[in-house]
Amino acid sequence: MPTSIASDPDRLLPAETRTRSIARELLERVDNLPIISPHGHVDPSLLAEDTPFPDPATLLVSPDHYVTRLIHASGVPLDQLRVGGTTEVEPRQVWRRFCEAWPLFDGTASAYWLRSALTHVFGLTEELSASNADATFDTINARLAEPGFRPRNLFKDFNIEVLATTDDPMDELSAHAKLAEDGSFSGKVIPTFRPDSYVKIETPGWAGRVQRLISAAGDGKTGYEGYIRALENRRRHFIEHGAVSTDHGARSPFTCKLTTAEATRIFERALAGDADAADRDVFEGHMMYQMARMSTEDGLVMTIHPGIYRNHHPDTFERFGGDSGHDIPVPVSFTEGLRPLLADFGTAEGFHLVLFTVDETVYSRELAPLAGFYPSVYIGAPWWFLDAPDAMLRFRASVTETAGFSRSSGFIDDTRAFCSIPARHDASRRIEAAFLSRLVAEGRVSDERAHELIVDIVDAAPRRVFKL
Amino acid sequence: MPTSIASDPDRLLPAETRTRSIARELLERVDNLPIISPHGHVDPSLLAEDTPFPDPATLLVSPDHYVTRLIHASGVPLDQLRVGGTTEVEPRQVWRRFCEAWPLFDGTASAYWLRSALTHVFGLTEELSASNADATFDTINARLAEPGFRPRNLFKDFNIEVLATTDDPMDELSAHAKLAEDGSFSGKVIPTFRPDSYVKIETPGWAGRVQRLISAAGDGKTGYEGYIRALENRRRHFIEHGAVSTDHGARSPFTCKLTTAEATRIFERALAGDADAADRDVFEGHMMYQMARMSTEDGLVMTIHPGIYRNHHPDTFERFGGDSGHDIPVPVSFTEGLRPLLADFGTAEGFHLVLFTVDETVYSRELAPLAGFYPSVYIGAPWWFLDAPDAMLRFRASVTETAGFSRSSGFIDDTRAFCSIPARHDASRRIEAAFLSRLVAEGRVSDERAHELIVDIVDAAPRRVFKL
Amino acid sequence: MPTSIASDPDRLLPAETRTRSIARELLERVDNLPIISPHGHVDPSLLAEDTPFPDPATLLVSPDHYVTRLIHASGVPLDQLRVGGTTEVEPRQVWRRFCEAWPLFDGTASAYWLRSALTHVFGLTEELSASNADATFDTINARLAEPGFRPRNLFKDFNIEVLATTDDPMDELSAHAKLAEDGSFSGKVIPTFRPDSYVKIETPGWAGRVQRLISAAGDGKTGYEGYIRALENRRRHFIEHGAVSTDHGARSPFTCKLTTAEATRIFERALAGDADAADRDVFEGHMMYQMARMSTEDGLVMTIHPGIYRNHHPDTFERFGGDSGHDIPVPVSFTEGLRPLLADFGTAEGFHLVLFTVDETVYSRELAPLAGFYPSVYIGAPWWFLDAPDAMLRFRASVTETAGFSRSSGFIDDTRAFCSIPARHDASRRIEAAFLSRLVAEGRVSDERAHELIVDIVDAAPRRVFKL
Repeated sequence: MPTSIASDPDRLLPAETRTRSIARELLERVDNLPIISPHGHVDPSLLAEDTPFPDPATLLVSPDHYVTRLIHASGVPLDQLRVGGTTEVEPRQVWRRFCEAWPLFDGTASAYWLRSALTHVFGLTEELSASNADATFDTINARLAEPGFRPRNLFKDFNIEVLATTDDPMDELSAHAKLAEDGSFSGKVIPTFRPDSYVKIETPGWAGRVQRLISAAGDGKTGYEGYIRALENRRRHFIEHGAVSTDHGARSPFTCKLTTAEATRIFERALAGDADAADRDVFEGHMMYQMARMSTEDGLVMTIHPGIYRNHHPDTFERFGGDSGHDIPVPVSFTEGLRPLLADFGTAEGFHLVLFTVDETVYSRELAPLAGFYPSVYIGAPWWFLDAPDAMLRFRASVTETAGFSRSSGFIDDTRAFCSIPARHDASRRIEAAFLSRLVAEGRVSDERAHELIVDIVDAAPRRVFKL
Repeated sequence: MPTSIASDPDRLLPAETRTRSIARELLERVDNLPIISPHGHVDPSLLAEDTPFPDPATLLVSPDHYVTRLIHASGVPLDQLRVGGTTEVEPRQVWRRFCEAWPLFDGTASAYWLRSALTHVFGLTEELSASNADATFDTINARLAEPGFRPRNLFKDFNIEVLATTDDPMDELSAHAKLAEDGSFSGKVIPTFRPDSYVKIETPGWAGRVQRLISAAGDGKTGYEGYIRALENRRRHFIEHGAVSTDHGARSPFTCKLTTAEATRIFERALAGDADAADRDVFEGHMMYQMARMSTEDGLVMTIHPGIYRNHHPDTFERFGGDSGHDIPVPVSFTEGLRPLLADFGTAEGFHLVLFTVDETVYSRELAPLAGFYPSVYIGAPWWFLDAPDAMLRFRASVTETAGFSRSSGFIDDTRAFCSIPARHDASRRIEAAFLSRLVAEGRVSDERAHELIVDIVDAAPRRVFKL
Repeated sequence: MPTSIASDPDRLLPAETRTRSIARELLERVDNLPIISPHGHVDPSLLAEDTPFPDPATLLVSPDHYVTRLIHASGVPLDQLRVGGTTEVEPRQVWRRFCEAWPLFDGTASAYWLRSALTHVFGLTEELSASNADATFDTINARLAEPGFRPRNLFKDFNIEVLATTDDPMDELSAHAKLAEDGSFSGKVIPTFRPDSYVKIETPGWAGRVQRLISAAGDGKTGYEGYIRALENRRRHFIEHGAVSTDHGARSPFTCKLTTAEATRIFERALAGDADAADRDVFEGHMMYQMARMSTEDGLVMTIHPGIYRNHHPDTFERFGGDSGHDIPVPVSFTEGLRPLLADFGTAEGFHLVLFTVDETVYSRELAPLAGFYPSVYIGAPWWFLDAPDAMLRFRASVTETAGFSRSSGFIDDTRAFCSIPARHDASRRIEAAFLSRLVAEGRVSDERAHELIVDIVDAAPRRVFKL
């Protein structure tokens, strides 16, 4: 059986000899630094409960839409992968499907992460294949039963210092509280305030959700006033539990500033179910502006992840729910959409706004120019489909010449796949070393500065940008 | 006279020593595989008649808008190149203009194809130049008179296994039938159903063409019903003559689903000459949807080539007709436009939809995400202006990290220049080897898998995607 | 103190050994050629007066928005950098801020230019740092007092043959006249006609400016007729003072052709202050068309720099004026917008239209296809945020495969920073050598032709495209 290439110490480094040797030295500087993960989607109860992981398929395949989507594209129905809570087949069967599909992943980011996890977390030395599906399932299953493979022990082994989760504004954050109070757990697990379903009028159940929010946190105020007050209060609750940032998954980065009277009118129409599409867009743009305003007051870092057409395939959405692999990017532009927000808050003291994209066209055209002027704006690390070696190199090559290194956010793993966290950070560090090594080899950055820069990028930047 | 660089055995391979040696070995695996050409524009009567090619200019220059456009940009009027059937000058004169202009082509894809054809098909060893124009004209002319340079002999020498042409739905396909029946010709020449001028209301003569279609193939039905029936019948006729795919040259990939009543009303307005611009867009979008529906029933692979502003320069169009070098791309987006079609047919059993683009922005943003989820969607090989070494490398680097290798179509030469076919496939194979060699050198794909992948990409993918 | 990397003779050349050695030889061919600068923003009175430069900060920092914007992004208010004529702090203090901020510039184009100027113009051998701020300020200051550092002497030392400035249509061009008449100054300093504030109705003071223009140059005609006549006359005045081109900074490359009656109606509404947004767009598009028409008559090369949202941050604009670092690109498309202009003038004898962009998506999609057909269209060198090593390489890789080398403009430094001119041209030459060396190493262009091409690109192209 072929040996896994995950054991190659030079993986992801450039091929050219001199450049590779520069890259190796740069990598050494950051290889052992702790993981800072300021944005992701791990369930905090995983660590709060510290229950053993289930089987390999439920851990590594079924919940990971990066993985299931490509197997689906090859013709395997999602219910054969236990996506969306379906249980028609056994986990072992899912693992077999996955092993058969493994060759499809060659060249993908997922292959890198999975191969790394299998090798460096679970100790597999062989490449996966249809013929070792049962054996590898059993091996990993056995590992998962060992105490060393419980979430908290892995958290420690992974050398994670901070892990941010993403949470509903009404979440009581008891898992975070439990972890914070637990003297035996030294990691920092912090929540992130994600109000999408409270500010997007079109999300199913919006009115009821908003009414509950106002009742619970509106300080007795009602209507739009109570709504704003409640959001402010819930942000405070998050801050008290360690939150440093908010997250906004808008379809477009449109922002606008309504008067309170205008906002109130739309809000009331929306509660009555009478809002139209224009109302919805304007209200969402206004709430983006309001969230920025709140950030300038309470200090939470604002992050925006725009430009995704969610749930593109209706039938799949109906059967398997959201996050089942058919969110597809659309073109995006920040320059005009963000102007109202930046006009008022772009130079506000202490305001941090991190902009992510899955549309690469904005890197050199908009993000680097914006972040290269506004003290508040930071360029988010390559996101989602772009969180991959070549895409990361394109990112650096596109933004650095205008904005340098200081205006980007540092790596964000954005993952719900806990076991992929070390592999994702490892890939990022290797690519940063690869990029810098080329600049050094081409006489564009001094070797000395490159050694400082890589530490700044990997360690200082996320702390600085996310106020950790 | 300088020697042609087409004889360099390492042409297009990466410069770095170790990577180049990996690339060489990969190239060896596919160098002698037969050519599969599932989409192109060669005239089938060329092979059916097997008449000798005319002179070098009429073969290599005048009909090739890739070539004439750049000479035109340098200030040579198109009638000096016998474009669009003009005959003001002699072919030898055209060849002189071409040889004088030859230095303009340095660095272009056309230079690679032409230089390869001149060297490997016609045996020239020198670079073209103004001073050897007459001599090279004569040399090639002499070759063209030899029996070995007749189309069918070249077809065999080129090692072509399958060649698809592009044909009008009303074409009787007699050239294809003649070739299929001819025991002395072992190649496979198959038609492609291209209904653009029957579904785009704005094309001159639409109404008459559609009436003839209905009369000929509508099974006695009339109006919209007869129109749909006739299209279905003509597709069947194509299938009977070996067709495996349809081709659609929409300006944008907009699709929509009208009711039969709505479609009928627009169809009637259009026949009466009363359709407006909105009618035209909606009807074209609806017919794209209908073509997908038919594909799910008759199994033809659907290919879309969108995003071109045809005939940009009115005066040139008037004097030289279409395909005279001034088709210019426009921005394109698939995510929203294709949704109605994909909502209904995206996971339909056996449906294949190959999406091409001349707007590179959609590679990582839309095509890889779509093809990485929908079993029906395949990413078309780099098309037209992007069918060139660096553009192909950008393509692979942009789509592979999300969609792997299995979701792309395999190479399509899309050419009307018969003698460029081997050079185009050769370039593609070299670039696939170059791309894979980098992944191997960077520890991202194993050497073993790269050897399997390149065979899959070159040989198995086009057979699989085009159901050959 | 670390030595500046600006003294590396191989800076910006590719790392791979064989490719680098090819690049070195190519660079040698053009290293000593004179500088041709057909588009830029140096103040001609600088050379006409030949007064010594002020201190280092006023020379290299305060007026350079590439530099001040990134320092601003790090949190330093613009008035601490004496931007926009503010004088709250002393130049020495500005220089200290700049030296402290110097590490932010690693990897940027500005770092390359500044480091080159400091090393090769001012003889510094160390890297800047907070600790040598005062010493470097003093060193440069001392140099600036020497006669050799007066503008005209630097002009000669820089080996500048032609330098174009950018000027208001009503400018009397007396500085240009003075230089032309001065037998002791052998350089050529030529004006460029930039009518933006006369054709964009929305610019403050438009009506008064236009009335003055008509009075001064309308040959006694009034209204729209006088306006067109006056613009034609002022172009003639520019031509008489050596101008070879016009410059147009449109928000979008939209063009259209109005009848004289339509244009007159909008013009009158605009003078009366009654033009609406649609009027403004249409009028600007019409005037772009008119400027092309005038170019076909008087021979001035037309250059368009579109796609910038000027003065994005209102508060900064109010306090520091235009060109203070917050102009941000927006998406742009040329294919449809330029069609009316190109339909009528695209093949006009002698017409040259140079298209610039800060939206890289148009390189392969639109600019190379347009310039590869229309004899009038040239692809402008990478502009503004894209005038940087990696961006330049992306430019060449994106346009060359379709349009070759002959359809691009040659390098344009576009700078108001006089001392950065040699560094900018040096960077461009090195990148051209780097790009060509890769094509040679990959067997795509012959070594011989590469040696010819680099001379053509650096020297002949700007002369040919700008009619110098």
